[in-house]
Amino acid sequence: MRYKLTIEYDGSYFHGFQRQKNLISVQSKLEDALTEILKEETLIRAAGRTDALVHAKGQVVDFKTSRNVPPKNLKKILNKKLYPGIYIKDVEIVDERFHSRIYAIKKEYHYFVSINEYSVFNARYMYQFHNRIDIDKIKEAMEYIKGTHDFTSFSKNHTSPNMVRTIESFDLIEKDGILEFIIVGNGFLHNMVRIIIALILKVGEGKFEPLYIKKALDAKSRKACPYVAPAEGLYLWKVYYEEN
Amino acid sequence: MRYKLTIEYDGSYFHGFQRQKNLISVQSKLEDALTEILKEETLIRAAGRTDALVHAKGQVVDFKTSRNVPPKNLKKILNKKLYPGIYIKDVEIVDERFHSRIYAIKKEYHYFVSINEYSVFNARYMYQFHNRIDIDKIKEAMEYIKGTHDFTSFSKNHTSPNMVRTIESFDLIEKDGILEFIIVGNGFLHNMVRIIIALILKVGEGKFEPLYIKKALDAKSRKACPYVAPAEGLYLWKVYYEEN
Repeated sequence: MRYKLTIEYDGSYFHGFQRQKNLISVQSKLEDALTEILKEETLIRAAGRTDALVHAKGQVVDFKTSRNVPPKNLKKILNKKLYPGIYIKDVEIVDERFHSRIYAIKKEYHYFVSINEYSVFNARYMYQFHNRIDIDKIKEAMEYIKGTHDFTSFSKNHTSPNMVRTIESFDLIEKDGILEFIIVGNGFLHNMVRIIIALILKVGEGKFEPLYIKKALDAKSRKACPYVAPAEGLYLWKVYYEEN
Repeated sequence: MRYKLTIEYDGSYFHGFQRQKNLISVQSKLEDALTEILKEETLIRAAGRTDALVHAKGQVVDFKTSRNVPPKNLKKILNKKLYPGIYIKDVEIVDERFHSRIYAIKKEYHYFVSINEYSVFNARYMYQFHNRIDIDKIKEAMEYIKGTHDFTSFSKNHTSPNMVRTIESFDLIEKDGILEFIIVGNGFLHNMVRIIIALILKVGEGKFEPLYIKKALDAKSRKACPYVAPAEGLYLWKVYYEEN
């Protein structure tokens, strides 16, 4: 029996998604809880690993078990155990062949930037940016990111055999001094969203012209954008599968 | 020279306001930072102590020093040291006689209750309440709290020589499943706001009739309302002084 879980977590409670020795991670918390509840060693697979301090509103994981627990009951028991940093939003029984990473067709990330005065209540949840920015230039820069490109310049580790990704949409909602960037693509390289946001904010500050984004893509070298926006502003918002 | 600071803090970073041995408190962080910056032992006085996990949007503290630092500079240096859990919103030089507790004429607290589905992002900042409630009954119950009463039934410790307090206003804003209670009074007994909110939510659930609030006040005994709403929903929002 294979289960698919849709989960939310506050990255500030954990040392990232992936299990690490002697550190509290989302994976270790979840696997330990499942192993205890199901009374058999249970390992999970995730749609994607999130770095330390990065949040998730809709991470997807799956696991196989010989037990048969009604999804509703499993949700309740798990949430009791995982409180307060992880919340299981949805539990489904899926086809045995389902694989949360391989079956994902696209992912949506949101990135929050506050341009208001510093607030302690945003510290774990947004990038608090205090330089003047030009929203029109930011919007112009965002256009160059859309579409299919080689994102070598926007990746921390050049380990993927294929650095080409397609950005389906890239939107910005501005409200009460909060910028919410919404990016949807068929895949993302390591730190790709945070590197994109960092460079776009540099354009907003006037350090580069919007056209520099195109030049950075063409350069196919991380040297073209050696910046990374802070982890706390990033949320893995949704993972899309064929059936959605 | 006496300085008045208006500060914001996220209660989830500290073990309460008051200095305690071997625990991180707002007071210890602030006094240690001031002592280091001013190069002389500096002790602060606060408008009120907040319990563990309680937040502040506008706590006021004051301290005396032989140094003369321009308020703007002190704000900058302190914020650098206190990042990310405490933020100094305002620094003023005040009359030598100023006393942040004694001079306070009234205080405003806000209390946040979410009636939405559980979210990890609200865990440290709101009381997440999942029972059905009747807003009209809650509003009716709130009316009994307004005015001048003996709040013995709504106090954790009966140490104050005078248990009479005046609640000037008590309002409720309801938006997107978040209830924001706003209470202003000339003073508050220990845990008073959290006990009031807890009893009012019991009324909202239908466990008591609104009139029970009056009966609880008349009882002058904590036995009449042995409940306390969680600390994480509470914010010391503003302290009022004559000059405001």
